[in-house]
Amino acid sequence: MSTDDTTETSTDTETSCGASDASSAADSATSTDESTSTCGGSTSSSSSGCGGSKKETTDEKVGSTVDDFEADPGRLVAVGLGPGQPDGMTQRARETLLAAEHIVGYTTYVELLPEEVTESAEELYDTPMCGEVSRTEEAIDRALAGNDVAIIGSGDPNVYALAGLALEILESKGATATMVDFDVVPGVPAAQSCGARLGAPLVNDTVSISLSDHLTPMPTIESRLHAAAKEGFTIAIYNPWSRKRRENFRKCCEILMEHRAPDTPVGIVHGAGRDDEQVDIVELQELDALGETDLVDMTTTILVGNEETYVWDDRMVTPRGYESKYDY
Amino acid sequence: MSTDDTTETSTDTETSCGASDASSAADSATSTDESTSTCGGSTSSSSSGCGGSKKETTDEKVGSTVDDFEADPGRLVAVGLGPGQPDGMTQRARETLLAAEHIVGYTTYVELLPEEVTESAEELYDTPMCGEVSRTEEAIDRALAGNDVAIIGSGDPNVYALAGLALEILESKGATATMVDFDVVPGVPAAQSCGARLGAPLVNDTVSISLSDHLTPMPTIESRLHAAAKEGFTIAIYNPWSRKRRENFRKCCEILMEHRAPDTPVGIVHGAGRDDEQVDIVELQELDALGETDLVDMTTTILVGNEETYVWDDRMVTPRGYESKYDY
Repeated sequence: MSTDDTTETSTDTETSCGASDASSAADSATSTDESTSTCGGSTSSSSSGCGGSKKETTDEKVGSTVDDFEADPGRLVAVGLGPGQPDGMTQRARETLLAAEHIVGYTTYVELLPEEVTESAEELYDTPMCGEVSRTEEAIDRALAGNDVAIIGSGDPNVYALAGLALEILESKGATATMVDFDVVPGVPAAQSCGARLGAPLVNDTVSISLSDHLTPMPTIESRLHAAAKEGFTIAIYNPWSRKRRENFRKCCEILMEHRAPDTPVGIVHGAGRDDEQVDIVELQELDALGETDLVDMTTTILVGNEETYVWDDRMVTPRGYESKYDY
Repeated sequence: MSTDDTTETSTDTETSCGASDASSAADSATSTDESTSTCGGSTSSSSSGCGGSKKETTDEKVGSTVDDFEADPGRLVAVGLGPGQPDGMTQRARETLLAAEHIVGYTTYVELLPEEVTESAEELYDTPMCGEVSRTEEAIDRALAGNDVAIIGSGDPNVYALAGLALEILESKGATATMVDFDVVPGVPAAQSCGARLGAPLVNDTVSISLSDHLTPMPTIESRLHAAAKEGFTIAIYNPWSRKRRENFRKCCEILMEHRAPDTPVGIVHGAGRDDEQVDIVELQELDALGETDLVDMTTTILVGNEETYVWDDRMVTPRGYESKYDY
């Protein structure tokens, strides 16, 4: 069990499950009646009546290929829920979920779905932590077995999230995207949800960078931070801190300070849309020390202003440049 | 009249109204009964019954300061509509628009609003082209005069859009954001709407860059393109082409070719969500020549893959890196 998994509760989905191994997670998904399993999936059938979560062994064996399925394939749609709360979802996302037979996702998000959505689904499959690889594979197997499946995540499926993984696993199974009529329903990314809370920090050219070196080597991340900071981009930092990656955050602050003024405004949004949400605007020189506070963890998104960003009336404003052309 | 204004019909809102002058646009907004005015705003009162657009002179004089208003201020909310079609809007955006007394926006977007929204508004104020500065000022004046106002745009208010301009103009009028309870309702940005249509092109670190040099000098844009292309970011290009900026597009293609392989996948989405929508995946070396075709204009968003992006089953896939850690 890794604390990194809490990333899934606020930023766009990202695996950071350093210690987990996909195959063992997949194995445990086939025996979910073992309640001691932490990475196993739980299947609840909403048609079972009184709303209780009925755990059952899943039919499909994870690790299968397209040849193991005899039925005509169903559909697979990757749906971005946006900020996580039901009212941050687009109408198209809601309609797609209402039309889906099976909904697959991280437990926290399945629990946040509106009741009309969870009640209309034939099956909900969720995994509490780790294992978006096994969860995505489960979604694909269900689609290949003939079901219409929606796989959900917060934010947008294209931002450090499941759209790519779904296509990669489809290919590895010898299936095609066309076979399951694969589609993506976009959602509001964390950078935009958090930007809205801060005012207007991101209205000019912007970079998004994840500080997780689980899937990208740290030297690459550092080099990208240097380039972005040097070139006047505003910077959205995803997955900024975890106990295992204190050093990445410290290094990031150091690189930013090399290129930007110490008083550059930095917006911090912790746990966006959750009970423990906290929004703060600080100066860049204060950021490093905040890594050891509750404000910065894996549920935090950090927006770093550029050279022109200023703070006015508790809002972060990055000018788009209108003031150079218009008289107002 | 500048063709650049068509940018507002598909990408997130961006001014590109090279030849327009804010003060003359503002002037014309006070005499919208002149039907020959191209940049003037039109006010239609939805309470006027049979749905006709009743043009009338607006009450508030544009160019006013906070001291010109005697009433208690109302609210001002910048609302992102997402891809433009009503089902791409979040529930929160819809609820915010239903609660607004006045809705202000570019004509194309006002026309795309669901009927329940336009019918519930007391007044709709739209300008057909140019003039988001005067339009934003109009929205602010209406809020300062005591109305609850929503100012709308496609995509997200933080992506080359109105959230910053609204705060800048509020400040210039001697008002504050708090005074009008300024809020931002985020929407799905064009990069994500277009990414969804292409598959999974943007699942790793990404840059968004606008090629419009109306508000950002071209040397800055070029320098940012070099940095982004060198550092393995996927790149979302906004406002890629207009008749006045052929050279910017050509230069951009040249810079990308310096750093990326000629067969790098590039996704092109023209007129997303409109009747003339076109989605294509090409190789980087073909991009330059497409600048002179209908596929690439100001309604187009271009997504440039990184070194690892590939095309599979007509989808663009940028691996997140899972394949290096997991066996599937």
